[in-house]
Amino acid sequence: MSIALFIQHRFSKRWKEYLSKLLPDTKIEIYPAIENDNSVEYAISWKHDMGVFDQFENLKVIASLGAGVHHILKDESIPESIEITRIVDEQLQKDMASFVLTQCFNSTRNIFQYQRQQVNKEWKLHTYKTPEETKVGILGMGVLGQATARLLNRNGFHVLGWSKSKKNIENVETFEENGLKQFLAKTNILVCLLPITKATIGIINQKLLSQLPKKSSFINVARGELVEDADLLKALDTNQLDWAVLDVFKEEPLPEHHLYWSHPKIVITPHSASLTNPKTASKQLAENYLRLKKGKKLNNVVDREKGY
Amino acid sequence: MSIALFIQHRFSKRWKEYLSKLLPDTKIEIYPAIENDNSVEYAISWKHDMGVFDQFENLKVIASLGAGVHHILKDESIPESIEITRIVDEQLQKDMASFVLTQCFNSTRNIFQYQRQQVNKEWKLHTYKTPEETKVGILGMGVLGQATARLLNRNGFHVLGWSKSKKNIENVETFEENGLKQFLAKTNILVCLLPITKATIGIINQKLLSQLPKKSSFINVARGELVEDADLLKALDTNQLDWAVLDVFKEEPLPEHHLYWSHPKIVITPHSASLTNPKTASKQLAENYLRLKKGKKLNNVVDREKGY
Repeated sequence: MSIALFIQHRFSKRWKEYLSKLLPDTKIEIYPAIENDNSVEYAISWKHDMGVFDQFENLKVIASLGAGVHHILKDESIPESIEITRIVDEQLQKDMASFVLTQCFNSTRNIFQYQRQQVNKEWKLHTYKTPEETKVGILGMGVLGQATARLLNRNGFHVLGWSKSKKNIENVETFEENGLKQFLAKTNILVCLLPITKATIGIINQKLLSQLPKKSSFINVARGELVEDADLLKALDTNQLDWAVLDVFKEEPLPEHHLYWSHPKIVITPHSASLTNPKTASKQLAENYLRLKKGKKLNNVVDREKGY
Repeated sequence: MSIALFIQHRFSKRWKEYLSKLLPDTKIEIYPAIENDNSVEYAISWKHDMGVFDQFENLKVIASLGAGVHHILKDESIPESIEITRIVDEQLQKDMASFVLTQCFNSTRNIFQYQRQQVNKEWKLHTYKTPEETKVGILGMGVLGQATARLLNRNGFHVLGWSKSKKNIENVETFEENGLKQFLAKTNILVCLLPITKATIGIINQKLLSQLPKKSSFINVARGELVEDADLLKALDTNQLDWAVLDVFKEEPLPEHHLYWSHPKIVITPHSASLTNPKTASKQLAENYLRLKKGKKLNNVVDREKGY
């Protein structure tokens, strides 16, 4: 029984080191240097090559290196019998929450506008809204959405939350699936933290954006596939949206020719809202491996139907 | 007995309206349209013209429109007998604190670096430090410094505070005047919130900056006079400093020819960290006027020796 890493250029050696410290008696290999395919029962994946798992007949678990599992679920060659897990790391939640908080303040305090003005040596003061005067609407109230809601709340923002099934969260005005229109009508800053599912791909489209109040802002920290790029650009160009802060894109790295790069009202960060911390994540990966070995129920197993 | 406003282009009519609502029976005039100089006992100033108060023989109080009073204290023609007051507004403190918090996160999360990269269509990920791994050192632990310390603390940052006399503040490692060296050696992000006094003009100089750890950041939200501009530029150019976020300058608006505008490691905001809110500030101004009228002790009187 052994572990194999399929994590592309994501610091394979460093991850192997962390895991080896926690599991000193376990064989841990980096694909494609696998000695015996049949001994691999636990795979760790980050954007693995489609179909790569076909040759591992005894594989039982594929563990995502991050919170997202879309890169695993889209590989249709993976048998139903294989369990898929993901990282649920409190630090990931904290980092995501503070990234969104920062971008909300950057939006209300005109920081990106001042950055643009600096290029033109322009000194021009703009009034600002306090957090208490600002409503942040979070699409997706899972673990990350809830952590973000709590931090925004603690810093004075009004928070609204929309999710498939209505959640009860202190100090957050929540909406369920068919309350989307009401949710959007109240939102000044829209934060996207949805998982990718059949129902959410392309959800950020013209229809949705047109239901926000004029001059809202948009922050996408989930996945690029959720956004209809042409619709987003149109919403910015018609002043329906004031700003878009985008951390995720359909194709990453974002291709050089993409219109997003040079759009004056788009702020780009390179999928950096929250980065998996090897120290904390490797503990979860190791614990699940030990659970597998003992025949125990795994932690943070993904529901393939739900997509998270 | 009347009130006169000497507040330049700071929305005089709006301020007069707010004050008139609170003091409906009081004559409130906007300089230079003053009917009877001798009836003016209460002046409200923002960057008034030096010597302008000479002609008001019965003037008893000059109230600053903001938290700062340097624009009043530097006018040597003002008699000692005139009391000077300032605005101490909880919202001003909150706005200052959240501005500093935002800039600390922008620094740790590489947001300005990503903004620079976007111009070059460069996708490059940088690791980041969590707030728990970051020490923010605040120079000046007055009302604004303490509010900022509390907010940074609540968001996970380690906070150090330096002030003339040592303060005891929960969760803040404080230093007194002669502990400056020890304070600087521990600081990753230096925040300047000092008042202008004889001892603090030019305090941000080569000697001070060289005592910070390499690649620190600097945030100035106090006054431009505290900084030796040439020394700051040198610290940035030698990588002693990683970033400087500057909200205040010796001359405002910052002149077009100033080197700060186009420096790749300087972020400029137009004195926008906290803007006096007419609603809340006018209440304080009105209350002090009523206290003056009744011969009561005024609130928020400035100690001219201390300079705040």
